[in-house]
Amino acid sequence: MTSCNPLAIPMQDDAPQSFGFAPCEGGVCAAAGMRAAGISAGFRRNPQRKDLALVVADEASACAATFTQNRFCAAPVQVSRGRAASGHARAVVLNSGNANAATGEPGLRCAEKACALVARELGCDERDVLVASTGVIGVQLPLEPYMTGVPAVVGALAATPEAAHDAACAVMTTDTHPKEAALVGPAPQAGGGAVTVHVGGFAKGSGMIQPNMATMLCVLSTDAPLTPEAARSALLSAVRQSFNKVTVDSDTSTNDTCILFATGAAGGDAIDEASPAFPAVAAAIKGVCTNLARQIAADGEGSTRLVTVDVLGAATQADADKVAFAIANSPLVKTAIFGHDANWGRVAAAAGKCGVPFSQEAVDIDLMGVPVLRAGLPVPMDEGDMLRRFEQPEIGVAVSLGAGDAHARVWTCDLTHGYVKINGEYRT
Amino acid sequence: MTSCNPLAIPMQDDAPQSFGFAPCEGGVCAAAGMRAAGISAGFRRNPQRKDLALVVADEASACAATFTQNRFCAAPVQVSRGRAASGHARAVVLNSGNANAATGEPGLRCAEKACALVARELGCDERDVLVASTGVIGVQLPLEPYMTGVPAVVGALAATPEAAHDAACAVMTTDTHPKEAALVGPAPQAGGGAVTVHVGGFAKGSGMIQPNMATMLCVLSTDAPLTPEAARSALLSAVRQSFNKVTVDSDTSTNDTCILFATGAAGGDAIDEASPAFPAVAAAIKGVCTNLARQIAADGEGSTRLVTVDVLGAATQADADKVAFAIANSPLVKTAIFGHDANWGRVAAAAGKCGVPFSQEAVDIDLMGVPVLRAGLPVPMDEGDMLRRFEQPEIGVAVSLGAGDAHARVWTCDLTHGYVKINGEYRT
Repeated sequence: MTSCNPLAIPMQDDAPQSFGFAPCEGGVCAAAGMRAAGISAGFRRNPQRKDLALVVADEASACAATFTQNRFCAAPVQVSRGRAASGHARAVVLNSGNANAATGEPGLRCAEKACALVARELGCDERDVLVASTGVIGVQLPLEPYMTGVPAVVGALAATPEAAHDAACAVMTTDTHPKEAALVGPAPQAGGGAVTVHVGGFAKGSGMIQPNMATMLCVLSTDAPLTPEAARSALLSAVRQSFNKVTVDSDTSTNDTCILFATGAAGGDAIDEASPAFPAVAAAIKGVCTNLARQIAADGEGSTRLVTVDVLGAATQADADKVAFAIANSPLVKTAIFGHDANWGRVAAAAGKCGVPFSQEAVDIDLMGVPVLRAGLPVPMDEGDMLRRFEQPEIGVAVSLGAGDAHARVWTCDLTHGYVKINGEYRT
Repeated sequence: MTSCNPLAIPMQDDAPQSFGFAPCEGGVCAAAGMRAAGISAGFRRNPQRKDLALVVADEASACAATFTQNRFCAAPVQVSRGRAASGHARAVVLNSGNANAATGEPGLRCAEKACALVARELGCDERDVLVASTGVIGVQLPLEPYMTGVPAVVGALAATPEAAHDAACAVMTTDTHPKEAALVGPAPQAGGGAVTVHVGGFAKGSGMIQPNMATMLCVLSTDAPLTPEAARSALLSAVRQSFNKVTVDSDTSTNDTCILFATGAAGGDAIDEASPAFPAVAAAIKGVCTNLARQIAADGEGSTRLVTVDVLGAATQADADKVAFAIANSPLVKTAIFGHDANWGRVAAAAGKCGVPFSQEAVDIDLMGVPVLRAGLPVPMDEGDMLRRFEQPEIGVAVSLGAGDAHARVWTCDLTHGYVKINGEYRT
């Protein structure tokens, strides 16, 4: 069931709040100097569904981007990767319904032509336009919907929350909800005082989700005057701790793309990595990314529960990540959560299987805040209490390995009949 | 639905045949000098289900064993690992219904006591008795069922196919079919001629299956007079190419155990790794293991199709294994097979996600023998023909990376509503 209303997923990361940032409206248009639009252009058979989005900065902006690490990478990823390397961009055009992946030379030419059509309408250099696609793999992307759709979507551009929302809706595939987030707060100035800045964006993703460097598609913007280097540094750090820590089904897409525009329209001091405002803006970017990542996990295909997996006490960061993903990707753990079964044995087996060294006699496990294993031995559970805790929309799994000080947090969802139904029936 | 009839899974490996081996009856009792039994002893609540198995060599035999690499390993694994290191054993006692895992010191004492009870009945050293368990994790294993069950199961020992079958049935958990296999063939003698030898065994496993060094539980026997070193070498090689190449759900059990007894009762020359008979007997051991491994994949929880994944043209063996497991563990690939969707895009995405280097322009993919991708570009498919091919009980997925000469073969099954139902409802 597809809805145009977002999921109400709370911010879990309180770092932005500590810098004085608070949630606000407007998504990718929250930042001054940004416009967006989403329309139905004919990439999908169903004319009721929007399938073409455009996000535009009023002027060429600092821009940073991350892309899939999948060896099979789509044509738009190949085109955008080269262009984003300049550190500046003006716009990104996105479509759903067709991933333009495994499409060879014709696919590359189509992606470049889409950028050229946008550049002509905006009156900018086509090298300042990026492109992203999501949908079926291995089918040539038709150019026709761009021919009529690009002028129409440019005509619909607006700086409103509604326009941002339309763009977020136009990139949905098996997503059941659009995913938007935005924060507003102060960027401290060298000379004292502060300038108000915004960070916002949208993302899409529901299946084929274990992003590696970025989620399937995400567009972020800020009006903070970040330098290209600062934008890149803040984006890489945020993505590493947000989208790269989400898994729905361990499958990495061919099209993952995450793009940040920094318009500078808020004014004030230019922000590089040494600026007093950098930690605050970077925390806000990470806060928006984390919230969007949690929305993706919560809206994972067939999901009924958002799951946060914390691994503590690992010997190294790599160990912590490996154990957290082993648990978050375990079909047995995920079906147990679907079945409201406080099955810590499956959590323990998943932690132990991945080759990370620890002593089973040192392991503690908590499920939904309740100690269920201490020093490798079971703690008796109140089954009625556990069943009641499973009614919550968010489920916490915490494992302490007793092997060091490293920790990792990963988000996932349960594995349900809905997942099997969607992917056993979704014709690609 | 549980059945006492085995699945009819053909031998896929033709190496044993090339040495003159052919399938035979008798499972773990096919080898001369072996007896077995399976009874209901009270480990399970349901008295209709057998839950205690015993496999005994008439005399202390050469013995080799492999065990789970999971950091959480069960008490019986800890006990048996130490004892199997001697290279000799007389018997193994196995129960279902309780894994004796995460049970601390009391669990270890219970496993040792079970061995002692068997040793007393058989009149042998308790260090010559191994133990294995499967079932729920984190619940103390009661000793009472052993107290009454061990004398009863010793009394039931027989060298018949029926007794071997009872033992195979007594270790089933979510398995819907018992899993047995046996081969008979000639062991060439140094002085000319040959002695007829047998290799047989049973295995269990349906969920929490991506064994690492062994399947959940497997007992093999041969009457070929293998030395302990030859038994170990043949077992390790066979396990690496069979049980370690099966995945149902990527989860490695805490209890995986695979034990080979070599009674020598067939007579003839002692067989070490340099003997003329070694390649033939090793091929037969691998043939039995491969067939049992395929039975496990075919009976994976909720499975409707047995899937063979072949990865060819990888740069290294490790690369080939990694890509084959990435495909075999991909929920998107597995649900597509359930949905009879010839979705090579998901196969390509799974191959590309795991960090193994190759060029997408060099990749070929065949589904069920039909070329669907050549040099990274789609080959038009006859959808009706593909749908008909999905009616077969076995599905082949072959990917050629064009990056080298290494290849890997992995077996798995589809991901279905049955898997979610079994694991969302199975109370552990």
